Amino acid sequence: MAIKGYIASSMDGYIASSDGQVDFLTDYQHIDCGYDAFIAGIDTIVMGRKTYETILAFGVAWPYPQQQTWVLTSREDLRVENERICLWKQGLDALIAELKRPEAGNTWVVGGAELQAAFIDKRALDTLEVYLMPVMLGTGIALFPKEAIAKQAIKQVHTSLIDGTVIKHTYHFDVAP
Amino acid sequence: MAIKGYIASSMDGYIASSDGQVDFLTDYQHIDCGYDAFIAGIDTIVMGRKTYETILAFGVAWPYPQQQTWVLTSREDLRVENERICLWKQGLDALIAELKRPEAGNTWVVGGAELQAAFIDKRALDTLEVYLMPVMLGTGIALFPKEAIAKQAIKQVHTSLIDGTVIKHTYHFDVAP
Repeated sequence: MAIKGYIASSMDGYIASSDGQVDFLTDYQHIDCGYDAFIAGIDTIVMGRKTYETILAFGVAWPYPQQQTWVLTSREDLRVENERICLWKQGLDALIAELKRPEAGNTWVVGGAELQAAFIDKRALDTLEVYLMPVMLGTGIALFPKEAIAKQAIKQVHTSLIDGTVIKHTYHFDVAP
Repeated sequence: MAIKGYIASSMDGYIASSDGQVDFLTDYQHIDCGYDAFIAGIDTIVMGRKTYETILAFGVAWPYPQQQTWVLTSREDLRVENERICLWKQGLDALIAELKRPEAGNTWVVGGAELQAAFIDKRALDTLEVYLMPVMLGTGIALFPKEAIAKQAIKQVHTSLIDGTVIKHTYHFDVAP
């Protein structure tokens, strides 16, 4: 059972434009980055409130119907889309403890970047897969927000080129017990 | 004849600590990142004034004795270390034109990051090799300074893992004629 990240980025480390748009991904959406296999292995979804509201604003069917979703928030007034989505109001440390219970299965920290970085900084993320598109954006929302992660070595890294186009990185972190 | 970048970075995109230290590279300096072969193919060196002064401050022999070095600066009072180092005061566009002359041979834009980004933004860099060390620094001097590069697709990318430890990226850019 593991806590994972899985995220797309520009080559210069931006996951979206400054206003949250991900148009830059459109040119590469025909490339198979293994999402179907990845999501099939995920039991629990974690996201922050802003990511949750962004997904709701898409106006499409909830994309994670097979998973238990936790939305980390301190707000009481969030709309809960369906019975498999729950608000988590006890803070990040208690959430990490919950996710480490065997019943949680495999968890995907969907985002945003600040939440993903907090998991890395707390040494709670086991692995992170980053899919780097061959484009420089120059600005936007950073994959790794500045000063969100204290210095740490990465235990193991892998890289591969998908379809001659997208660079995949996999990081295995040293995780706190 | 090409204009190239060759640079080491942390996995989260920092080339040095905020005060310019590169201690994080020490743990990986035994890994062969192909520097000897790379520098043997370089005829001309370009750097900014701060990078030049940083190298001088090391107090060691000038590291590029086989190359013509241009130091891009508007200052008159820079010490010139030897006869193969010249100050370039006519600005970046004129320097790029100079570097595109066949006599310049192959050029390495040593740094800093702002100068390298300016070459990319002006579509003057042919290739960039980035050596990503398996460490998160969390903060520091950015490999790609924010807002220094307008959005552009990268023509071709390659990746490989060196010694099971360092991820090498090679970018081939679309270059302006």
